[in-house]
Amino acid sequence: MTEFGERRRWFQEALDGAELDGALISSPVNVRYLTGFTGSNSLLLMSSAGAELFTDPRYTVQIEQEADAEKKTVATGTLLKAVCTSVRRRRMRTVGFEGLHLTYDSYARLSAALGEKINLKSLGRELEERRAVKSESEVGAIRQAVKINSEAYEKALKRFKAGMLESELALELDYQMRRMGAECPAFDTIVASGAHAALPHAHPRAVPIETNALLLVDMGAQANGYASDMTRMALPGKPSRRAVKLYRAVLEAQQEAIRATRPGATAASVDQAARRVLKSAGLDSLFIHSTGHGLGLEIHEHPRIGKTEKSALQAGMVITIEPGVYVEGWGGIRIEDTVLVTAGGCEVLTPTGKELRVL
Amino acid sequence: MTEFGERRRWFQEALDGAELDGALISSPVNVRYLTGFTGSNSLLLMSSAGAELFTDPRYTVQIEQEADAEKKTVATGTLLKAVCTSVRRRRMRTVGFEGLHLTYDSYARLSAALGEKINLKSLGRELEERRAVKSESEVGAIRQAVKINSEAYEKALKRFKAGMLESELALELDYQMRRMGAECPAFDTIVASGAHAALPHAHPRAVPIETNALLLVDMGAQANGYASDMTRMALPGKPSRRAVKLYRAVLEAQQEAIRATRPGATAASVDQAARRVLKSAGLDSLFIHSTGHGLGLEIHEHPRIGKTEKSALQAGMVITIEPGVYVEGWGGIRIEDTVLVTAGGCEVLTPTGKELRVL
Repeated sequence: MTEFGERRRWFQEALDGAELDGALISSPVNVRYLTGFTGSNSLLLMSSAGAELFTDPRYTVQIEQEADAEKKTVATGTLLKAVCTSVRRRRMRTVGFEGLHLTYDSYARLSAALGEKINLKSLGRELEERRAVKSESEVGAIRQAVKINSEAYEKALKRFKAGMLESELALELDYQMRRMGAECPAFDTIVASGAHAALPHAHPRAVPIETNALLLVDMGAQANGYASDMTRMALPGKPSRRAVKLYRAVLEAQQEAIRATRPGATAASVDQAARRVLKSAGLDSLFIHSTGHGLGLEIHEHPRIGKTEKSALQAGMVITIEPGVYVEGWGGIRIEDTVLVTAGGCEVLTPTGKELRVL
Repeated sequence: MTEFGERRRWFQEALDGAELDGALISSPVNVRYLTGFTGSNSLLLMSSAGAELFTDPRYTVQIEQEADAEKKTVATGTLLKAVCTSVRRRRMRTVGFEGLHLTYDSYARLSAALGEKINLKSLGRELEERRAVKSESEVGAIRQAVKINSEAYEKALKRFKAGMLESELALELDYQMRRMGAECPAFDTIVASGAHAALPHAHPRAVPIETNALLLVDMGAQANGYASDMTRMALPGKPSRRAVKLYRAVLEAQQEAIRATRPGATAASVDQAARRVLKSAGLDSLFIHSTGHGLGLEIHEHPRIGKTEKSALQAGMVITIEPGVYVEGWGGIRIEDTVLVTAGGCEVLTPTGKELRVL
């Protein structure tokens, strides 16, 4: 059985346990997870009779080449109509749907098309929770993305020169990732110099990177569908005392959070570990986001490593650890690794050194 | 009044007309359209008292710098909770929401949080229909994206050499777009050589571009938030008779569709114009997608230029015209321009020549 087949078998058992006659998977990323199909327009109908994958004629060739499913249907009308026909033919009564992803209007259309005798039930996040725990092949793909990410960072920094624009460095980082085999950046690369780094999600500007000011780079590679995520700080020139002091505090917070990362620990406890260090340094009010998030086929996945997330970590989860502090008008500091939860604790996948790097 | 203010005034009038006390805008692209805010996490509550924009502390600086709204709120808890407080304080009874974009689970959470006394009503696609008709400044942004797109195509093709991989040419195209000021490609660039072009949405592969086989390039730039979209065919070597014959038919179909593009014409009639040409050449069964789509802040917007879309075109709409034919095992041909509907008919914005280009 393929890895996709195994995932579908697990999911079908979950559906049976929930007394659902079937489930409609509409989010492209979950369709990919369960079948390998990467087309932009698809629906997957799961049932004990097997999984039926629907797409439109643009993907006739691709669905044959790429998808792993018991039945493949290229619909000439709307996919919704084709799915409803199949639901009725299989005499389903209670069908799960992805309330996490399906829009309200699509739900309403589906519900109207199926009629009153067929019940729809939101699936919750069981599939997302399963996706949080990566298989060996998935961890392999993430390792590859991490490797590309770190190597691209080195190559791009070697090309740094005084007067370079934020947008130029961002382009260089993205170019290097692609040259090494990434499909694309896993998210919009952040290159933020000086005060601009006070925006945790800053867009690179067409302005020169400042001398003697901190430079924040937050980047990820997507390779074979899987993401990496890394933030590093560099400094063209000399660091101020304040920069060194804040940097040390953030690094200690990040390392404490890594030490707290192990199977059985809650996501909240990892967040707390980082927050505690920053609190004792009087900096916790400047840490204005969560400590991290799962990643995989998507850049943000379950679990969120935040204050209120009670989920326990499990071996095989891949998460980011990325505390930061942000000072309006001055700048921001964030340090981030991609981390694999292991049986014994965790493995920091990101190989790039965490010294404050002088350019 | 700013352009954002004018848009909100128009939208507020539409809400008043629909007897809604307010509306909750949750899709980032519509929040951007109405306020200019580009943060990844936001909600916009529209009401006759003015628009209130919510975000989280990561965007404290950005919301101040970038957003145009009567009130700006940085929520320390969830945005949903903050919005519900505001809805109650303003004593709203019937609130519109974006059923087109809001997920079912988010709708259910919102509905539960607001309680039974407050009614929620899906807004339909009025905002999307308004967005289809571009203002002068929006057309200017799209012209800029189109220009970058076409110039990047020229520059990248100049670097074409025998043995180049599909993925290398795709990277070169993306790199050139970014160098000229695009934020990113407007979608995953397609470079498909020979039989691979039979997949309308082919991913570039790490395989050499074939000699004496057609090469399809489908690319778009996103600049200042706005997209362009273009497909061109090139050929390293000599075209076969079949290639020339099919190319001529697709080009004629594309030109007929352009001729049919004018205010008052239905989207379906433009699609029909292309389809008619391909039918008379016996090729209509190979044309397996719609003739085009609107574009702007998103790469796919209203209206779809398809068989069943009865919307009438209006001056100011920007659409693609992109018929194609696809032959499994042989290849595919598509020719695509970005086109502005004008009072007198239309203007093809894409300047790149449409000859079958021999490399």
